[in-house]
Amino acid sequence: MADFQIHPQLLADCHRLGKFPFCHVLLHKNRMVPWFILVPQTDARDFLDLTEPSRGAVLSEAATLSHFVKTTLGWPKVNFAAIGNIVEQLHLHVVGRKPSDPCWPAPVWGNLTVSRDYSVPELRDIASQLTRWCGLKEDSQ
Amino acid sequence: MADFQIHPQLLADCHRLGKFPFCHVLLHKNRMVPWFILVPQTDARDFLDLTEPSRGAVLSEAATLSHFVKTTLGWPKVNFAAIGNIVEQLHLHVVGRKPSDPCWPAPVWGNLTVSRDYSVPELRDIASQLTRWCGLKEDSQ
Repeated sequence: MADFQIHPQLLADCHRLGKFPFCHVLLHKNRMVPWFILVPQTDARDFLDLTEPSRGAVLSEAATLSHFVKTTLGWPKVNFAAIGNIVEQLHLHVVGRKPSDPCWPAPVWGNLTVSRDYSVPELRDIASQLTRWCGLKEDSQ
Repeated sequence: MADFQIHPQLLADCHRLGKFPFCHVLLHKNRMVPWFILVPQTDARDFLDLTEPSRGAVLSEAATLSHFVKTTLGWPKVNFAAIGNIVEQLHLHVVGRKPSDPCWPAPVWGNLTVSRDYSVPELRDIASQLTRWCGLKEDSQ
């Protein structure tokens, strides 16, 4: 997988934060909800087609992000999904939710009409906390 | 968990097909897409809050359903999600998708405006195939 490339649509929609052992870690540019996207380094298309060890590795990293969203960012609920009907490259959504967010209780996809991007210091702060508490590494790709 | 009850909204939206070792298996009443819902026998609310063995057990059952959707029902793609913003009881969506389905490429939640229920023989056929090929048991609850 040395020639693995993140899909350009994901790179257009997201900030690239770094890498966990198995997945690249992106953050959706819309900061109205904390919306992380994990991109596992695999050519499988559907999450449930991964082998059991790969599924476990992805879930362990998703659970780390979910814990970060709940405990550090203070969002009480996390939605988790593998959809990929538009961008076919396998990617997993880990999205913090709360009853006062702009599209609660609808799912975020297609329903988050309010948009605001992160500032550079905000992004740096999130990446630095993920590095300190969750083992995020620089993405050497 | 002897007093575990499936949420009445899930029972209203779905047909109850049976049980895998860890999850109750429901089928959404709208047959425009094959939309299975797994309800793990747990009081956790978010999928990523489950312990690693419980996550593994749920995923193994979800992967079995996904394989069934692809190989037996012939749908090429499967969406997988744990949302639960409306029905708070933990439940997992395993949804067959294809480019000719009525809401492709949008996610099904809130976007599947065409609805048709299964006939009794269709339901019996799906349950019988899941029993034969995927180890579905009767739900004794």
